[in-house]
Amino acid sequence: MKFKHLYLCTLVFIFLSCQNKNETVKNSQSDNVQEHPSIILTKQGVKDIRANLGTIPIFDNSLQAVKEEIDAEIEAGIEVPIPKDYSGGYTHVRHKRNWVVLQKAGVLYQILDDEKYAKYVKDMLMQYEEMYKTLPLHPKTRSYARGKLFWQCLNDSNWLVYVSQAYDCIYNYLTAEERNKLETNLFRPFADHISVDSPQFYQRVHNHSTWGNAAVGMIGLVMNDEELIDRALYGIKGVNLDKTAKDDDGGFLNKDGKAGFLANIEEPFSPDGYYNEGPYYQRYAMYPFLIFAEGLHNVKPELKIFEYKEGVLLKSINALLNLSDADGDFFPLNDGQKGMSYYNSALVTAVDISYHYGEQNPGLLSIAEDQNKVLLDDSGLAVALGIKNGNKKPFDKKSINLSDGPEGKQGGVAVLRNENIELVFKYSSQGSSHGHYDKLSYSLYEKGEEVIQDYGLARFVNIEQKGGGNYLKENKTWAKQTIAHNTVTQNETSHYNGEFEIGSKYNPELTYFSSENKNVQVVSAKETNAYPGTEMHRTMAIIKDKDFEKPYVLDIMKLSSNKANQYDFPFYFLGQVLKTKFKNTIPKNLKPLGSKNGYQHLYVEGLAKANHYNTKFSWLNKGKFYTLTTTTKANDELLFTRIGANDPDFNLRREAALMLRRKNAKNTLFVSTIEAHGSYTPVSESAVNSNSSIKELKVVLDTDAYTAIAITNINENTKLFITANANASKEAEHKLTINNKQYTWKGSYILTENK
Amino acid sequence: MKFKHLYLCTLVFIFLSCQNKNETVKNSQSDNVQEHPSIILTKQGVKDIRANLGTIPIFDNSLQAVKEEIDAEIEAGIEVPIPKDYSGGYTHVRHKRNWVVLQKAGVLYQILDDEKYAKYVKDMLMQYEEMYKTLPLHPKTRSYARGKLFWQCLNDSNWLVYVSQAYDCIYNYLTAEERNKLETNLFRPFADHISVDSPQFYQRVHNHSTWGNAAVGMIGLVMNDEELIDRALYGIKGVNLDKTAKDDDGGFLNKDGKAGFLANIEEPFSPDGYYNEGPYYQRYAMYPFLIFAEGLHNVKPELKIFEYKEGVLLKSINALLNLSDADGDFFPLNDGQKGMSYYNSALVTAVDISYHYGEQNPGLLSIAEDQNKVLLDDSGLAVALGIKNGNKKPFDKKSINLSDGPEGKQGGVAVLRNENIELVFKYSSQGSSHGHYDKLSYSLYEKGEEVIQDYGLARFVNIEQKGGGNYLKENKTWAKQTIAHNTVTQNETSHYNGEFEIGSKYNPELTYFSSENKNVQVVSAKETNAYPGTEMHRTMAIIKDKDFEKPYVLDIMKLSSNKANQYDFPFYFLGQVLKTKFKNTIPKNLKPLGSKNGYQHLYVEGLAKANHYNTKFSWLNKGKFYTLTTTTKANDELLFTRIGANDPDFNLRREAALMLRRKNAKNTLFVSTIEAHGSYTPVSESAVNSNSSIKELKVVLDTDAYTAIAITNINENTKLFITANANASKEAEHKLTINNKQYTWKGSYILTENK
Repeated sequence: MKFKHLYLCTLVFIFLSCQNKNETVKNSQSDNVQEHPSIILTKQGVKDIRANLGTIPIFDNSLQAVKEEIDAEIEAGIEVPIPKDYSGGYTHVRHKRNWVVLQKAGVLYQILDDEKYAKYVKDMLMQYEEMYKTLPLHPKTRSYARGKLFWQCLNDSNWLVYVSQAYDCIYNYLTAEERNKLETNLFRPFADHISVDSPQFYQRVHNHSTWGNAAVGMIGLVMNDEELIDRALYGIKGVNLDKTAKDDDGGFLNKDGKAGFLANIEEPFSPDGYYNEGPYYQRYAMYPFLIFAEGLHNVKPELKIFEYKEGVLLKSINALLNLSDADGDFFPLNDGQKGMSYYNSALVTAVDISYHYGEQNPGLLSIAEDQNKVLLDDSGLAVALGIKNGNKKPFDKKSINLSDGPEGKQGGVAVLRNENIELVFKYSSQGSSHGHYDKLSYSLYEKGEEVIQDYGLARFVNIEQKGGGNYLKENKTWAKQTIAHNTVTQNETSHYNGEFEIGSKYNPELTYFSSENKNVQVVSAKETNAYPGTEMHRTMAIIKDKDFEKPYVLDIMKLSSNKANQYDFPFYFLGQVLKTKFKNTIPKNLKPLGSKNGYQHLYVEGLAKANHYNTKFSWLNKGKFYTLTTTTKANDELLFTRIGANDPDFNLRREAALMLRRKNAKNTLFVSTIEAHGSYTPVSESAVNSNSSIKELKVVLDTDAYTAIAITNINENTKLFITANANASKEAEHKLTINNKQYTWKGSYILTENK
Repeated sequence: MKFKHLYLCTLVFIFLSCQNKNETVKNSQSDNVQEHPSIILTKQGVKDIRANLGTIPIFDNSLQAVKEEIDAEIEAGIEVPIPKDYSGGYTHVRHKRNWVVLQKAGVLYQILDDEKYAKYVKDMLMQYEEMYKTLPLHPKTRSYARGKLFWQCLNDSNWLVYVSQAYDCIYNYLTAEERNKLETNLFRPFADHISVDSPQFYQRVHNHSTWGNAAVGMIGLVMNDEELIDRALYGIKGVNLDKTAKDDDGGFLNKDGKAGFLANIEEPFSPDGYYNEGPYYQRYAMYPFLIFAEGLHNVKPELKIFEYKEGVLLKSINALLNLSDADGDFFPLNDGQKGMSYYNSALVTAVDISYHYGEQNPGLLSIAEDQNKVLLDDSGLAVALGIKNGNKKPFDKKSINLSDGPEGKQGGVAVLRNENIELVFKYSSQGSSHGHYDKLSYSLYEKGEEVIQDYGLARFVNIEQKGGGNYLKENKTWAKQTIAHNTVTQNETSHYNGEFEIGSKYNPELTYFSSENKNVQVVSAKETNAYPGTEMHRTMAIIKDKDFEKPYVLDIMKLSSNKANQYDFPFYFLGQVLKTKFKNTIPKNLKPLGSKNGYQHLYVEGLAKANHYNTKFSWLNKGKFYTLTTTTKANDELLFTRIGANDPDFNLRREAALMLRRKNAKNTLFVSTIEAHGSYTPVSESAVNSNSSIKELKVVLDTDAYTAIAITNINENTKLFITANANASKEAEHKLTINNKQYTWKGSYILTENK
């Protein structure tokens, strides 16, 4: 420790001695139109950083880690191979690594003022220049928009977003001739390839295009090229795509003709900052949004980019952080890979920028501290100083409702939270090409562990052995289908018939969201287009009741249809079956449940008829007990299913569900409670509170206007939950008589004793 | 912190002031034959503890935790319900809790000298006395030896082992009349019920009997009753059981007529300290062994119990700690529940006693520190002082070979370790009634995570919902069967025909164990009785080679038979399939692989023919990559199996295996390597070193005397591993010509370049 401190002091000393010289050099170039660095690092920022070095632990450690990483790379030598592989293959991985290394080496040159880093960046850029000027399209042909360094323009854009920063850092180190060579043979044609030469990639509202726009804009800012900057902000002038064409993922290329960075902020973000593709893709898109915004803020402050659309970029970071579980893992809505979390480096960028350019929310400092890393720029410095000065507070995640759609009118996502229980309720719009057919579905977490899971995507991102690291066909045949989600599938068909065009037209509508009462958190939403002629109306609550150890979930799914249907209602529980209150029989051989719409991937492991008006099922997961209590009718079928049929490459996880199947029903209710209770550890081998506290669950009223559920616990105390199915505003006043007892209340719902 | 410190100082002050008074009381009783407490806590020990209180953090914290726990119990009031439930049920759990509470309250009385604890113990004991004197046998009838407080004598014995300690602690607090009442109506009849009234339970060599012996002995020590002490040490005089009778688990009651505590030390422990039922049951048996030994050491030092059988009790603790993975979880050999670890309270006892009465191994202090708890007695004090004085060193687990059998001549268990890779090779004897038919099987771990798993038991210990928390029938039909293990099953029949009587007669024999070379750890053993007429000879190595990122496993299974057989050779990998180097086809419906011997529980999910002399299979588990390379022959079948068929109550985990099936083979070899390599995290989404480094695996020689395997890596370097199948001692000299090249070496094996 002492040694390190000494080392840093020495560094500071060296910087101070170098600074004057540096100033001189910079001043001699003051006749340049633009200073460098200017986009992410700024001249003043570099000064401040140097002045604080050695006294700001998290920054010093981040710098030291980057220095060690880059010194090792310099030691290993430069490699710029001829492109040939898909994701995960050698040339892909190497070029990907190079963009990271270039950006970091550029930053080190600025902060440490050591020419070896500048030289390294220059040498590698010159090798790229040499190769790029004669480089054909990438040999792999799978993409709708092939890149040159990579198989898809998307990755070429990633490269340019990072490498622009490196170029900015060594701009003044290069001679005018060197700059001219790089700009003419590398950067300008590179920017053109991903934009004017690839409009199907660039001219869209999509996370791919955001990367493309940012790439063109970043290099435009460094080169001070107004044409490129304009192209970045507003798209390619005069280019309009076929509005019915689709991309690789089945999404529309450009349905409404919008394009450019500003349109990409305008469209996918709701006023609450929810990103329409969900948190996994928001995390991916966040970096170009924020890094280009930072560049614009520094070079073109007059654009007031962080205030654009009422500050939605910074709001979106708050939304994103709130879409993570207790461990910081993002909820895997739509095509989301599980395990992606706010420890991802894009979120270091997001948290630091949000802190610095936003309102210095002290909660962000505790996330930054968990991340144990800051950006090596002005915003990272601000965070490091904030932590050093003891300004940190916990980032307190509460229940939150996030609207979806450019104007916040296309449904949304609600997260209900109480103690360690989190329920994610999805009533959002389609979510672009990465959306799933999962209207009104939910997932349930306890302390960061999944209890009732959302499957996520069927993809092993960047693992070459699994379909080149790209989407697997099971993503479409399983993961996107309705039956893969905790919602209703009608007649074994997915919502909107599993058609993107139809799904993109509609969205569920919020009935109400209520989080004022700290013991009762409720969300209610309706979907009328997923199955024409059928209305699905789901109300979900987390209720904290003194007679229960932990908050429990109440789930009311009300279905109204103009014809009789089969409704399948699965619970994708994780863990081991403990007990069922029904007689399960197992088939001799396992057969797929169906032949399409995801059913072909489900084996039936068990089958029962409901034998009671309350069906109970309990399971054990990661040392905790859970019990489902659900209202059933005679002839309701109970199926234990397991994922994995018709999966020749073992792309799917063999996980289970209990599925409630109700046939020949028109209007009907599925009412359930899910309790988390007790604990078990194999170390002590003692099972604590392993039984349900619910004695009975009963529907006492169900009309167009109201649904009332009585929940009786084992102490014989009954609570009545009445939800308003219509006229459900906070101000609405209700008067209702059930079994000769009158209930009057104001608001969306009431939870009351039932004596 | 400050407050706590002050509080402890005050406590110390109070003790000092009380001590004199206490001394006086004790002295006035010095005409008693025996001092109290004397068995676990001693008079001198209590003095030393009081003198150090407030200055020994781990002890102080343990004391504080116990105080809070017991104060809460006292607050809640005493409950001594009429017995009626099985394990996990209310009365079972309550009486189990009471024994813990009584023991701890007794200790608190001694250390804190606060009469409220003594009174609490007395009051509860009197309620037990009141109930016990008229208590019939427990109403549940499942056990071969029913208790009175519990459904089995085993739990009654647990109770008495703990409660004896409580009685010792408050002995002098009680009047002679009170003691007489308790001894006459409770303790003496209690000791008789579990011994003379239940000889089928007591008069054996078995962990059950160890508890029984210790219970009778502990209360005997407190009551100073030589008859009970004798009965504990040597068994019931004149009682001999039917030598062919069996217990609930299918084990012999008493095959050779031995009984008593000393016989229970003599028989199950090998000279190396391996306990024949395996670590899970050793952990369970450890507490009565050690706590009664501690009592004997204190009251009857002339017995030199810790020196008995060359100090095997203390050696056994070292063996047990070495039978845990990197996280401290015990390897689930035989009927072992996964997750049981050295964090279990029995291991706190074991570690503290081993440190205090053994050689103060500083490695034990680091385990004690991980446990974050010490015993509140002399040994706990010694550990606390050791930690305080900075004597701690890491507990370094190396490769180890532990013989099995009373004289170390009945096979054994070897653990090969190199860096983060651990391989557990089981060539032990049957393991009493908890043994599995798993000769020469193994399991593989990386950094505490299972890579190739041993299934463990089929039981949810103490979870009432699952068969009353007891063994499930699938323990016999699946978990014990050979096909559930990573070894060879011949003709779909388990080793020893799955018969306990046969299995108990035989055991594999060690060929050699070699751990001198830090880069090559090898074990080799032979089994000739599992399948009459067939010899299985398995040699397993962990090899560290500079061309490989991590140490890899080499596995050579040599089979010699007098007839043609079908051999099944499964790999119970955990994780997700990445890639196979064979063409897998999946069945339309899943069917069980067979109808008995465990095969009825396996579904076949995939089927292939080996199409190359090397079959490769890679998978991903918990962020790490693994690749199996195995030599195959034309017509070898490759089956992907999944556990879970014929399992109506979902008692089994749905886990997979890749099974190699070779039909119609007489003498044959299964040779495999298993590589751990690379890593993947969903946060960075980068896949590092995801491919195998092995290009080719070849058998270059296989005779009765030698087997030679060539391993060629992707850099085209070939290593030759030659194992001596006979004459394999360290001193043996070998000369062998393969392909005109001569190899000479001394020792069991050679690993050499093959140029």
